[in-house]
Amino acid sequence: MDDPLDTMHLALEEARIAATRGEVPVGAVVSDAAGTIWAARGNEVELLDNPIAHAEFLALQKAAAAKGTRYLADCTLTVTLEPCALCAGAIAAYRIKKLIFAAYDAKSGAVEHGPRVFAHATTHHKPEIVGGVRESEASAMLKAFFEGLRS
Amino acid sequence: MDDPLDTMHLALEEARIAATRGEVPVGAVVSDAAGTIWAARGNEVELLDNPIAHAEFLALQKAAAAKGTRYLADCTLTVTLEPCALCAGAIAAYRIKKLIFAAYDAKSGAVEHGPRVFAHATTHHKPEIVGGVRESEASAMLKAFFEGLRS
Repeated sequence: MDDPLDTMHLALEEARIAATRGEVPVGAVVSDAAGTIWAARGNEVELLDNPIAHAEFLALQKAAAAKGTRYLADCTLTVTLEPCALCAGAIAAYRIKKLIFAAYDAKSGAVEHGPRVFAHATTHHKPEIVGGVRESEASAMLKAFFEGLRS
Repeated sequence: MDDPLDTMHLALEEARIAATRGEVPVGAVVSDAAGTIWAARGNEVELLDNPIAHAEFLALQKAAAAKGTRYLADCTLTVTLEPCALCAGAIAAYRIKKLIFAAYDAKSGAVEHGPRVFAHATTHHKPEIVGGVRESEASAMLKAFFEGLRS
């Protein structure tokens, strides 16, 4: 099983919490094979008034601080939306072992779309990548959020 | 003139300071058209033991905090090395108006190489880009640093 800790369930819960604050509902979890959850964070762009406070970016920073290590080479990042260029760059910098994401993001995604950060010969680090895990739930949450904004 | 404040001179000075600490010599400055320097930072990856503490990333964060604004839409980022994917993503997120860089980075650069973050139709924001400003000085500093590591 790709996700024995059910980290995607936790990431979706973080996304749900973020949505209640008016954030775009994205959540992320950093875990290791021993079963430790090092960080679980939701999107905080509005809360912090900071355009780089993406869920997975905050989770990566928190996990490195919590572990007290420079890299997260034994860790999995689970996130409800395909990471953007900033977050994909951070995933490479922290040397994340495995990336699991839910919804694909044709607009801002930089893993399977646009810059495809890990697809170039020059990439310093390429994690294992599993996309589309519980995609329909994550997509439904995002769709409901954006429909709510328009109504 | 592309750089009336001579921000590249300041960025090169930050790079030089960083090198004295054993950092890869990269420096960055965030300025605006009114002549205010909002941030000048060097690479602090070793100092902070943090793989994302790139000069331009730190300068962007500091400038947004100093200005007290979410975006840096009226600002120029001047950096001595072509930004990586992480930093290019941050440049887009902060909506930087203009990017000036010195040395090209065929290995980790993500502006003119590899992911070419701003070259895709999906990019949310594309700054004006001027590469190669005082390239030989920045490249010589980087070359001297890496030769020193090998000797």
